[in-house]
Amino acid sequence: MNGKPLVSIISAGLSKFGKHEGLYARELFSYAAKEAFDRCPKLEPKRDIKAMFIGHMGEAYEHQGHMGSAAADWSGLLGIPATRTEAACASSGAALRSGIYAVLSGLADIVIVGGVEKMTHRTTAEVTEYLAMASDYPFEQFHGVTFPGLFALMATAHMNAYSTTQENMAKVAVKNHHNASLNPKAHMQKEVNLEAVMASKPVAWPLKMYDCSLITDGASCIILAKPELAKKYTDQPVQIIGSGQASDSIGLYERQSLTSLQSAKTAAKTAYEMAGLKPDDIQVAEVHDCFTFVELMSYEDLGFCPVGKSGKLIESGETQLEGRLPVNTSGGLKAKGHPVGATGTAQTYEIYLQLTGQADKRQVKDAKIGLTHNVGGSGATAAVHIYRGDA
Amino acid sequence: MNGKPLVSIISAGLSKFGKHEGLYARELFSYAAKEAFDRCPKLEPKRDIKAMFIGHMGEAYEHQGHMGSAAADWSGLLGIPATRTEAACASSGAALRSGIYAVLSGLADIVIVGGVEKMTHRTTAEVTEYLAMASDYPFEQFHGVTFPGLFALMATAHMNAYSTTQENMAKVAVKNHHNASLNPKAHMQKEVNLEAVMASKPVAWPLKMYDCSLITDGASCIILAKPELAKKYTDQPVQIIGSGQASDSIGLYERQSLTSLQSAKTAAKTAYEMAGLKPDDIQVAEVHDCFTFVELMSYEDLGFCPVGKSGKLIESGETQLEGRLPVNTSGGLKAKGHPVGATGTAQTYEIYLQLTGQADKRQVKDAKIGLTHNVGGSGATAAVHIYRGDA
Repeated sequence: MNGKPLVSIISAGLSKFGKHEGLYARELFSYAAKEAFDRCPKLEPKRDIKAMFIGHMGEAYEHQGHMGSAAADWSGLLGIPATRTEAACASSGAALRSGIYAVLSGLADIVIVGGVEKMTHRTTAEVTEYLAMASDYPFEQFHGVTFPGLFALMATAHMNAYSTTQENMAKVAVKNHHNASLNPKAHMQKEVNLEAVMASKPVAWPLKMYDCSLITDGASCIILAKPELAKKYTDQPVQIIGSGQASDSIGLYERQSLTSLQSAKTAAKTAYEMAGLKPDDIQVAEVHDCFTFVELMSYEDLGFCPVGKSGKLIESGETQLEGRLPVNTSGGLKAKGHPVGATGTAQTYEIYLQLTGQADKRQVKDAKIGLTHNVGGSGATAAVHIYRGDA
Repeated sequence: MNGKPLVSIISAGLSKFGKHEGLYARELFSYAAKEAFDRCPKLEPKRDIKAMFIGHMGEAYEHQGHMGSAAADWSGLLGIPATRTEAACASSGAALRSGIYAVLSGLADIVIVGGVEKMTHRTTAEVTEYLAMASDYPFEQFHGVTFPGLFALMATAHMNAYSTTQENMAKVAVKNHHNASLNPKAHMQKEVNLEAVMASKPVAWPLKMYDCSLITDGASCIILAKPELAKKYTDQPVQIIGSGQASDSIGLYERQSLTSLQSAKTAAKTAYEMAGLKPDDIQVAEVHDCFTFVELMSYEDLGFCPVGKSGKLIESGETQLEGRLPVNTSGGLKAKGHPVGATGTAQTYEIYLQLTGQADKRQVKDAKIGLTHNVGGSGATAAVHIYRGDA
């Protein structure tokens, strides 16, 4: 397709990420929807929006499935086709992909995609258990391993293969916390230094507390339109020019490699080819740093550096806000927070802000091409999207 | 669109419905996939199938989310984009709709859609609780109501408004059990008589044991292709010529009516308009008889009879196998079984068999136009599809 817009983003919304006491997920989602609607006054949501796809990872948090209909109703969109998508932490990356299909199908010219998760009313043990449902039950969960353990296995394999260090990982946390300190919607708007990260409590060696993303309440949404319609609604559409999604074995024991994610590599290849772009063309990216190590692995899977060199890339400073390729300007899952179902389209929200010059203190100057990288579980799903600012 | 094929069904598969001890859902789904692959020898699944959407309602049954990737892997489709859709008992109706978007989008010329649920290893109390997650948590579940109670409210309102009787409902059970006795894949292949239904134990008045569908293990899948490609794979494609999906308030307390489902009426209207057809044109239908009363309500929502006259329609015998409009020739959710995530595309499977002359003892003679009606929860989602046999 070589850069032809698949669909246009005409608006986007994000709830504050953090702890929202006394709110149901459906209410939280309506905050994100309201921002998207307010941002696009020419949109008449009830009239114009023809379908919804919403990422929601866990029924267990609120004992509530059927989130599509609930979120549609609470957002003032009663009646539209509304489907929940679930692909673990890539649930809203999958919603975005599904929304792109819907717009391209010709059956729906404008759709809302997004995601939501309400997590903080549960204990850490409960959340850990609910998240673990996205790993392999008979071969992983049953034996007691949870996600920090699974990603620790991968981090250890990468350290062994490429001499990646705990300090390399810690620098991801330092960078992303700095970015979050500039993001008023981030869950943890505070800086951390390398010593604090390195001294934080062990979770699953080599991953420590500050290597782990946050348990967060949050919601995000994106309004997609047929490219021909976009200018009717906004002077600043952002074009989605590449979309890739792929799956892999759910259990790590079946994978070819523990040091990269085949799903992410496949999804990236598809998205780059569709966009007619190369990794060097990307000017700002949001990647899936559920653990600091995963940001490093993403640099390699996305072609931002050669295999095994992600430690070197983070040390170079090039992925900092002022670097050549700023990564996770929002603060990432690490510090902005990781309301799992909402994360994929929250990444898109940040890229939307960056490519329309609305990212305020964390604005990347003249950014025109952005990328999002959303991973489900330990990598059994990945969705990669590439964006172009046309304003 | 007036009857132009949206997509073509080139194959379909269904596991035996019933009790499958010692199988995981992913394995059960592979049985359905294998039948679909075997039925279409020109298909090379790994090469040809570009995406999967799989309906799966409850993570709780197996403590397993992320079913898209698991099912893709276990069906030999490792690597393809695979997304779980969830819209309660309409989860695979929503998967079908999502697959139609995907094929029409031009990004995927052949896709597999389906659904799976593994339920019978859980107690009835557990299943009742997991199913209830598809109703409104704060306004329904929290107060102890479960699905038999919600549908009993509707049945009671319908009895009050239209003098519908318990005998009318019981006749749905008698009809569907007869049909299931002719279906070797049905869970309960036995006839029941009116007296047995009327004498069965109360569940939630007026609904008795034999008014309720079954807790069942099962999986279903459908292979969709671009219409231009279909003839390359099969001489007997079935065309999907109408597709409607709609949402409604999740809680009954917010509905305009308790005697009809607005979501089903909207979805049906969309599907009929797209197909350029009227209710009278339908020659065979699978409707969502999670409770016998819901089949009656569907007759009215789908326009098979005037509002309030569904009791009369079932009494007329016209919806029996040898009638003018046979409904639930498979045995329906009532007697074939209701593995919730699998039900939507299991309905499509039956229509596929009917329109290709493969329904054996329950074949409807010369059936060319079919319809499926899949309801999620107490009606917060509905998906209606219309099919044409072209062979």
